[in-house]
Amino acid sequence: MNRKLRMGMVGGGRGAFIGAVHRMAANLDGKIELVAGAFSSDPEKSKLSGEDFFIDPDRAYASYEEMAAKEAARDDKIDFVSIVVQNHLHVAVAKTFLEAGFHVICDKPLSNNLEDAKELQKIVRDSGKVFCLTHNYTGYPMVKEARRMVRDGELGRLLKIVVEYPQGYAVGDVEGDGQGKISNWRADPKIAGASNCMGDIGTHAHNLARYICGIEIEELAAELTAFIPGRELDDDGNCLVRFENGVKGLIYASQISNGDENNLNIRAYGTKASIEWHQEDPNELIVKYANAPRKIYRRGNDYVGEAAAANTRTPFAHPEGFIEAFANVYLAAAGAITDQIEGKAPPAEGYDFPTVDDGVAGNAFIKACVESSANNAAWTKLDL
Amino acid sequence: MNRKLRMGMVGGGRGAFIGAVHRMAANLDGKIELVAGAFSSDPEKSKLSGEDFFIDPDRAYASYEEMAAKEAARDDKIDFVSIVVQNHLHVAVAKTFLEAGFHVICDKPLSNNLEDAKELQKIVRDSGKVFCLTHNYTGYPMVKEARRMVRDGELGRLLKIVVEYPQGYAVGDVEGDGQGKISNWRADPKIAGASNCMGDIGTHAHNLARYICGIEIEELAAELTAFIPGRELDDDGNCLVRFENGVKGLIYASQISNGDENNLNIRAYGTKASIEWHQEDPNELIVKYANAPRKIYRRGNDYVGEAAAANTRTPFAHPEGFIEAFANVYLAAAGAITDQIEGKAPPAEGYDFPTVDDGVAGNAFIKACVESSANNAAWTKLDL
Amino acid sequence: MNRKLRMGMVGGGRGAFIGAVHRMAANLDGKIELVAGAFSSDPEKSKLSGEDFFIDPDRAYASYEEMAAKEAARDDKIDFVSIVVQNHLHVAVAKTFLEAGFHVICDKPLSNNLEDAKELQKIVRDSGKVFCLTHNYTGYPMVKEARRMVRDGELGRLLKIVVEYPQGYAVGDVEGDGQGKISNWRADPKIAGASNCMGDIGTHAHNLARYICGIEIEELAAELTAFIPGRELDDDGNCLVRFENGVKGLIYASQISNGDENNLNIRAYGTKASIEWHQEDPNELIVKYANAPRKIYRRGNDYVGEAAAANTRTPFAHPEGFIEAFANVYLAAAGAITDQIEGKAPPAEGYDFPTVDDGVAGNAFIKACVESSANNAAWTKLDL
Amino acid sequence: MNRKLRMGMVGGGRGAFIGAVHRMAANLDGKIELVAGAFSSDPEKSKLSGEDFFIDPDRAYASYEEMAAKEAARDDKIDFVSIVVQNHLHVAVAKTFLEAGFHVICDKPLSNNLEDAKELQKIVRDSGKVFCLTHNYTGYPMVKEARRMVRDGELGRLLKIVVEYPQGYAVGDVEGDGQGKISNWRADPKIAGASNCMGDIGTHAHNLARYICGIEIEELAAELTAFIPGRELDDDGNCLVRFENGVKGLIYASQISNGDENNLNIRAYGTKASIEWHQEDPNELIVKYANAPRKIYRRGNDYVGEAAAANTRTPFAHPEGFIEAFANVYLAAAGAITDQIEGKAPPAEGYDFPTVDDGVAGNAFIKACVESSANNAAWTKLDL
Repeated sequence: MNRKLRMGMVGGGRGAFIGAVHRMAANLDGKIELVAGAFSSDPEKSKLSGEDFFIDPDRAYASYEEMAAKEAARDDKIDFVSIVVQNHLHVAVAKTFLEAGFHVICDKPLSNNLEDAKELQKIVRDSGKVFCLTHNYTGYPMVKEARRMVRDGELGRLLKIVVEYPQGYAVGDVEGDGQGKISNWRADPKIAGASNCMGDIGTHAHNLARYICGIEIEELAAELTAFIPGRELDDDGNCLVRFENGVKGLIYASQISNGDENNLNIRAYGTKASIEWHQEDPNELIVKYANAPRKIYRRGNDYVGEAAAANTRTPFAHPEGFIEAFANVYLAAAGAITDQIEGKAPPAEGYDFPTVDDGVAGNAFIKACVESSANNAAWTKLDL
Repeated sequence: MNRKLRMGMVGGGRGAFIGAVHRMAANLDGKIELVAGAFSSDPEKSKLSGEDFFIDPDRAYASYEEMAAKEAARDDKIDFVSIVVQNHLHVAVAKTFLEAGFHVICDKPLSNNLEDAKELQKIVRDSGKVFCLTHNYTGYPMVKEARRMVRDGELGRLLKIVVEYPQGYAVGDVEGDGQGKISNWRADPKIAGASNCMGDIGTHAHNLARYICGIEIEELAAELTAFIPGRELDDDGNCLVRFENGVKGLIYASQISNGDENNLNIRAYGTKASIEWHQEDPNELIVKYANAPRKIYRRGNDYVGEAAAANTRTPFAHPEGFIEAFANVYLAAAGAITDQIEGKAPPAEGYDFPTVDDGVAGNAFIKACVESSANNAAWTKLDL
Repeated sequence: MNRKLRMGMVGGGRGAFIGAVHRMAANLDGKIELVAGAFSSDPEKSKLSGEDFFIDPDRAYASYEEMAAKEAARDDKIDFVSIVVQNHLHVAVAKTFLEAGFHVICDKPLSNNLEDAKELQKIVRDSGKVFCLTHNYTGYPMVKEARRMVRDGELGRLLKIVVEYPQGYAVGDVEGDGQGKISNWRADPKIAGASNCMGDIGTHAHNLARYICGIEIEELAAELTAFIPGRELDDDGNCLVRFENGVKGLIYASQISNGDENNLNIRAYGTKASIEWHQEDPNELIVKYANAPRKIYRRGNDYVGEAAAANTRTPFAHPEGFIEAFANVYLAAAGAITDQIEGKAPPAEGYDFPTVDDGVAGNAFIKACVESSANNAAWTKLDL
Repeated sequence: MNRKLRMGMVGGGRGAFIGAVHRMAANLDGKIELVAGAFSSDPEKSKLSGEDFFIDPDRAYASYEEMAAKEAARDDKIDFVSIVVQNHLHVAVAKTFLEAGFHVICDKPLSNNLEDAKELQKIVRDSGKVFCLTHNYTGYPMVKEARRMVRDGELGRLLKIVVEYPQGYAVGDVEGDGQGKISNWRADPKIAGASNCMGDIGTHAHNLARYICGIEIEELAAELTAFIPGRELDDDGNCLVRFENGVKGLIYASQISNGDENNLNIRAYGTKASIEWHQEDPNELIVKYANAPRKIYRRGNDYVGEAAAANTRTPFAHPEGFIEAFANVYLAAAGAITDQIEGKAPPAEGYDFPTVDDGVAGNAFIKACVESSANNAAWTKLDL
């Protein structure tokens, strides 16, 4: 395909954090160009955002419905849409663009409830379109290396998985003064769904375990808490977890862990070895053994596996970070979209980006957490 | 008192790990001398061990009962006994020496069951003797500094406590070949009690949280597992925890976390700040804030508090380790014993070493873990 | 300016590492588009590279001279050129484009000799054009924070500066088998100039010290070595350094430090405090004091200064890396170019990107290193 | 030998740091007892110190000469003396005790000048007595493991050695207010000799390189500086170094590196691998390779070599520190003394503690540093 892929965006106008990240991820490799958008539900703001991004004023739309309709009618229409709106709108927007014939890249979580997520899953399957959910932490090369090690049996039989995701940014509002408060919409059940913390970041922890270890949770016992007075939704959650195959573990996420920043980390313990990865130090993967020196695998070296190597842009110790990992998700989705445009079959090993199925699993995880917690941490099965 | 304190030892003969640690802890500061012992239930081995430690052959006893009786009759009798036998004997030996009029330093856990622990608690209280339980991790200076910060309110209101204690040494026996197996007695319920992992190291995690944060667990939901086939007792345990005052958290301990060595660590999160301490890097204490640079408090500096300073032997960055921390427990107990000998009143702020009460709390913790796990992780209150 | 800046590139065709980095740095923020290039001295390769980058075939030129001439004649001509050719061509290419009226972004070192560097310095000054030299490590936010601290006097009077830049990638060729060998042109004095290691990476170390500390080296005593047999140029160099104002220190660079990757780091010690920064962990800045806890400043927090904040794209602990820092240099240069196009005066505090003057300082440093080493590490003044 | 070794001490009275360290090192393993001392040149203070250490009042001597004479006449005389006085007295005290027939353990540096050091070397050789110099950092197990790796050829051919020893405690006296000042005697050339910083800690750095790498420095180019006004002797020194066999490197020591504590560290780079060890994190040894994951060797594991294992007291990750390393030097010297007492031949591989020869090398290093620096960092050979 002798041109850049054409991207549209819904949401992500001026000042929106995650929209800017999606644009940088799309820009980085020079293979995608942003050409259209409904950047805000406020038409004027959408237009101004379009100017910021140097797009044709005609393609800065007043609503996503208008955008889907008008783009569908163009010869140079967008190839795919990036959806970076609030959780409760993901499904509706995705549905609109899928039905208009577009591929979709959508921010996580898939939905603010499991039922809608499953409905969207069906629509995606029926559409035949590419649907990518940006569980971006799976884009890190050393996460892919960890996954390879598990798949290749280098850990032996898995025994235990511990995933932590403590943040502290939301502790500040203890005096109700608005310092360190959770954004309005995340704290609002109508928008965020039945969970704030587990929905926003717990799902990343959950998905990371699934991606690296290749197994599902069977049931969990969760305690969700709103530590800061006045919050309707959880700002902290801890789960005992029973995975498939007798694997056990812990998953916890928190937004009131004062001074922690974005400390997602995972440890997976097997009979032969164990791995440990920290998002805040993403270029390293620690591998531990019962009676051999620990090994530190570092991104960019020849000794790392194929997937890690293929998702690397700079030599070892020229650090890659959050945006590069995010861009890897975009690149993988872009590859699938290009294959469809060019009529190519998917590779034998499949594509390596999170899908609508991962999104459904995420919503099932959230639902189980909320239900278990409401039942005093009773063991609750995931409705996958 | 113009002489060294005289110590006897029960257990800890040739080749015993923890006995050697107790002796080094006692030796370090030159204020205690080992003069007697019943080092083994095998009289010959006890005698040979006595030779190793250069003690008078007449004071290398064939049994602890003989030792208690004969020492009680000497003018130069021991001032206290160190008990480093297997768990199921702690109470009987302690009782014997207390009743013979001796102070006691005893290895943890206090007992292999809560009932005996409580009985011993009563005996100790009635005796008026010094009873020190060697929860040695409380001896680290930066643990004391963490405790000071909590006490002084530097963390604000406590919200969450996470204590981890993963070890991996017991993962090896997966093939039943004896590699990496748990010592026979720890795996034997008759000796170790109803739990192996939570009893052996979970109690350290539990005690560390209590010592630093100054609060008790109200109830917990625990899942204990024996991952390696053939084990009667747990080699891993995870707990959701509800502390007093609405504080919540997690405590977990493991002996099958492959490649982890002695990775006890604690994080305590408050509304103003949080602290993080790692036993494997004990000379540092990390303090985190919502919107200020993290601070690294390092042992030996003038800016640390009184208790940390008083428990320090070398200047900053001349690392202190496990034995020095253990010796701090000995020093504190020796101070109390000396006060009794010299007829001095205890200091106003009390002594700073773990007592029989801490031991009872530990056995209550073990019991709650075992019961909760047997009830599918039902919330279980601690019987304190 | 209601459009993206138009960039041309000289060098950087298929497979060239540094060209790809420049393109990603330019792409990242969506404010620059690559529209022309002379990507290779091989016209066919230049054309194919142009296809890779989706540029108009008419603007994939056979030579840089052709590019400068034809672009100058276009209405939609490039705004600036990025020069990513080998060292010995920097000056000639830069001169050509400056004389054709274009702004220039040029890879470092400025030249392979001091004389040409000074000539170019004069040309740049006379041209009035923007000239940016990509000493990319100055683009890291926490490097800018370190600089701010020094400028604001937070370190007190500077005493000592230690800069290290050990790499190990070139150790492998010990058997002459080509494994781990230095690229042909870097090892060739006609292309690289009189130094390999100090020219390639020593200059980064030198520039980092100058940028953060704001002082020049007065004289140095250097020992350059070619450790691996058969090398004409140094693969390692160590310098004793005397800066202005009585500040002393060490600068060393190495390519035979086996297993080190890209371990550029700097420590600057003052009477009040000292700072420490590691390129491999770039989101942190360590600040140390004589009698206060160490502080860890972390990118993305509100407490960091203006320059660090302005050069940040993601929230704290969403790691930024090498490309983001490189993009900061591009953004700063693009700002200056845009100001010229729009007829705006520079900001009062000046622009924050490395210039031709930094390049001359770098070549003076290289020359002094080579001369000192040839004179058995005699003290040698920098010809600034 | 069926008793503890009997130790005497010269210096090290109440409040002396290094004397207390020597006593703890001697106490730790229960194989040495302190029975006599001339703890201070003030007889009253010597007597009071003797009471502190619970020794027989008759053996708390008023002078070291009295001690040597009276102990030599006793049946239960000391086996060896520990010398912990100021540098300028080391030789005289050592000579006195050697001539009185005693073995000697002596603090470093050996002397405050090379000539006296060489004289003492001759006396020691002629005496046939054990003479141990407490270069205590060689006592760390992972330093011994590093040495083993070099000896076993695991690093290949050595290329470069970098040893750093920055401290910052002496930066404080910048205002002449006595804060952070160097102790009087260290700053006094008549006591400390011609160097403060290089003599006090530079020699540790130098000895560490020699011990691990097994090679001598041939010549060095040094710049010593007294940064803080009013100091007669250096508080900082940097050296370019040429070792035997074409190995090159850097050694630096500093006491004005603000906020650094006791940051002795070494990196040794070979053609096959390199090692890195940090005194502040002594239980780990980092091994790096050109194209294989880094390995972290950790004390106490079965995979470490014999010397590291033999010098270990606690299991992995039960941290050992400064005192344990110091005690390893004592244990090794005690072994040699015991062998002499029991008439046993030394082991085939020799003893593993620093000797008078290491002390002479240290004084030669100091002398070369001072001379080189006085000659504007001219290359100066070591007079070994």
